[in-house]
Amino acid sequence: MILLTRRAEWSAAHFYWVNEWSDEENVRRFGKCANRNGHGHNYTLEVTVRGEVDPQTGFVVDLKWLKDVMETQVIAVYDHRHLNLEVPEFKTVQPTAENIAVAIWRRLEGKVGLGATLHHVRVYEMPDLFADYYGEA
Amino acid sequence: MILLTRRAEWSAAHFYWVNEWSDEENVRRFGKCANRNGHGHNYTLEVTVRGEVDPQTGFVVDLKWLKDVMETQVIAVYDHRHLNLEVPEFKTVQPTAENIAVAIWRRLEGKVGLGATLHHVRVYEMPDLFADYYGEA
Amino acid sequence: MILLTRRAEWSAAHFYWVNEWSDEENVRRFGKCANRNGHGHNYTLEVTVRGEVDPQTGFVVDLKWLKDVMETQVIAVYDHRHLNLEVPEFKTVQPTAENIAVAIWRRLEGKVGLGATLHHVRVYEMPDLFADYYGEA
Amino acid sequence: MILLTRRAEWSAAHFYWVNEWSDEENVRRFGKCANRNGHGHNYTLEVTVRGEVDPQTGFVVDLKWLKDVMETQVIAVYDHRHLNLEVPEFKTVQPTAENIAVAIWRRLEGKVGLGATLHHVRVYEMPDLFADYYGEA
Amino acid sequence: MILLTRRAEWSAAHFYWVNEWSDEENVRRFGKCANRNGHGHNYTLEVTVRGEVDPQTGFVVDLKWLKDVMETQVIAVYDHRHLNLEVPEFKTVQPTAENIAVAIWRRLEGKVGLGATLHHVRVYEMPDLFADYYGEA
Amino acid sequence: MILLTRRAEWSAAHFYWVNEWSDEENVRRFGKCANRNGHGHNYTLEVTVRGEVDPQTGFVVDLKWLKDVMETQVIAVYDHRHLNLEVPEFKTVQPTAENIAVAIWRRLEGKVGLGATLHHVRVYEMPDLFADYYGEA
Repeated sequence: MILLTRRAEWSAAHFYWVNEWSDEENVRRFGKCANRNGHGHNYTLEVTVRGEVDPQTGFVVDLKWLKDVMETQVIAVYDHRHLNLEVPEFKTVQPTAENIAVAIWRRLEGKVGLGATLHHVRVYEMPDLFADYYGEA
Repeated sequence: MILLTRRAEWSAAHFYWVNEWSDEENVRRFGKCANRNGHGHNYTLEVTVRGEVDPQTGFVVDLKWLKDVMETQVIAVYDHRHLNLEVPEFKTVQPTAENIAVAIWRRLEGKVGLGATLHHVRVYEMPDLFADYYGEA
Repeated sequence: MILLTRRAEWSAAHFYWVNEWSDEENVRRFGKCANRNGHGHNYTLEVTVRGEVDPQTGFVVDLKWLKDVMETQVIAVYDHRHLNLEVPEFKTVQPTAENIAVAIWRRLEGKVGLGATLHHVRVYEMPDLFADYYGEA
Repeated sequence: MILLTRRAEWSAAHFYWVNEWSDEENVRRFGKCANRNGHGHNYTLEVTVRGEVDPQTGFVVDLKWLKDVMETQVIAVYDHRHLNLEVPEFKTVQPTAENIAVAIWRRLEGKVGLGATLHHVRVYEMPDLFADYYGEA
Repeated sequence: MILLTRRAEWSAAHFYWVNEWSDEENVRRFGKCANRNGHGHNYTLEVTVRGEVDPQTGFVVDLKWLKDVMETQVIAVYDHRHLNLEVPEFKTVQPTAENIAVAIWRRLEGKVGLGATLHHVRVYEMPDLFADYYGEA
Repeated sequence: MILLTRRAEWSAAHFYWVNEWSDEENVRRFGKCANRNGHGHNYTLEVTVRGEVDPQTGFVVDLKWLKDVMETQVIAVYDHRHLNLEVPEFKTVQPTAENIAVAIWRRLEGKVGLGATLHHVRVYEMPDLFADYYGEA
């Protein structure tokens, strides 16, 4: 098995809030993250694909292709945005590292192309907190 | 000359906007940073103090004291906040790395205490962008 | 499968020594690590848990809970300690990265709580040396 | 399962070029990497071995042994070299991160010794691009 | 005094060789760096400018301008190149971190524009080796 | 002005204790660092020298020479040692980052040789705490 991973970064604002809960409950559960003005992070994304090494190019996946897919499908949508207010998938779920990893998987699945398949997605919210998603299977 | 530097982190949202400019001018000058929903960063602060090494403790400044001053004067005010909306000094100036460094200098000046003096303040907005402020002199 | 990882740090002293071996054998096998005055490291711990994403909070595990468990079960016991002299589990086994990872697994197993399970533990002794433990199964 | 990972670095030059393709095709596919004067990188290698923890030493594998094997089998051959021109395995395949990971696996397989087995090899070409190889099985 | 620093990266090949010296002397003085096939690095550049904070924008220098100047004057010329063979300034001087820092200063001096002045240039050849150049004065 | 900096690492144990103080006073002032069993760190040293760029070699200082001086004068004495118990200069002063920086300056001053002079020494005790010493002048 051979895997190739490419990293990218974006910066965005977010907050956590459950509408069904009282203000007090939101603060009790989410602490400072419940501030609805939002705070933000420099996020780091690692996309890992699996495939065969092409005998001519030595690539599991064309690097430029992968970079472009990550750019157009994720970075262009998330970067310099308020995730709760401007990114559709976070209207209904909290933009936690876990949910962002799942959302990015769905944005990329089937698009890495050229014979390679998506293996997993890692999202760092900060250097000391990250989520990995390996798909539904 | 001996300097001691301590690092701390906070996460916050911000945007850039000049009220006197048109929407078009703001976007032209600030690009994606002009999105008034805000985006955000993991900021890193380095506070550098200068002084004499205490012959008994070996400290230029008591480390716990310095950490507490940074925590109460800066991190408690900036962390998990929207800088434009919730931090007084950024109601009137843009929360750029440059202006944040100046603002932190003013918050800390005269408070590092115990014989040491503030030497400079460094603020990283991202690993590839940072500002240093050495005071007005 | 979704995993969440949280990082923490501690600083401690340690050395390697097998009582059944001669001094010469200890030095031959452990080199500079056999100095019984001890040396030390800034250790980095990554704890990875596996679970389902809670549909309301977006969390696999409550972050504050996980941080508190890591703090009380590990960091409070290991930080600023001499591992050989002050931490019970290293009275009988060498405090190598491998054994520290196993010991931390045992300290955390069954305590990450709230439906999530411990997936693996990574311990960095230095940036260029680390161990991963996935449990006994 | 317990894994131990050791990191090492080397610096080398490389380029990508398929002799069967026209100059235009090489540039179209490999972009700036097709410059046959070569460019270069600081590569980072992580070698991960799997085994049992020795009850006396606390080691999955003797660290000095592992370091020496990595040094003699890989670093001594790759460091400060032009991979295409001076390293035999890259005469016939492109020195991509993927192919370098496979080549290092083959250089180390069966040599980590002392009961431990090679688990995987990771090669970083840059901090934002890396390949993992887990062997042929 | 306020300084703003922006970082950029490039990858290139280089070697050290003094034509007036014998082969033996070159190897004796430059060691592995004397391999004329070249080796390479991921270089990191930090450009620091000094100026006044613009009261409207909060910038010492327009960030996009600075990024573009670094890109067009340095990165576009050095990236994915063999410094000795393809970059004019290293035809006559060794491409050491010191000489690269001086060369980048000369490429950028007078171009950072908009009232700011170049303060210093830092070039990392590897994380553990870097040069700073502050100009000739 | 041109500066060249080289980095090195060592691992060591230390503690803080003033014999003239009571046990309570030591704990009150030094907190967890007053544990006389010792704790430890991965220290990072940066040695910065100043000089003229040699027109033939492009070096401010011969890199191998500098590395060897750092190795023999500092790393060989500090690495895998208990600083309080085994390094002469810390018998009488606390091994704080500040005092370690001063001690390394004294070990290196006058030895960097070949026309270059020592500019400053930086010692990281942890990534978020470091001291810089520029000599007595």
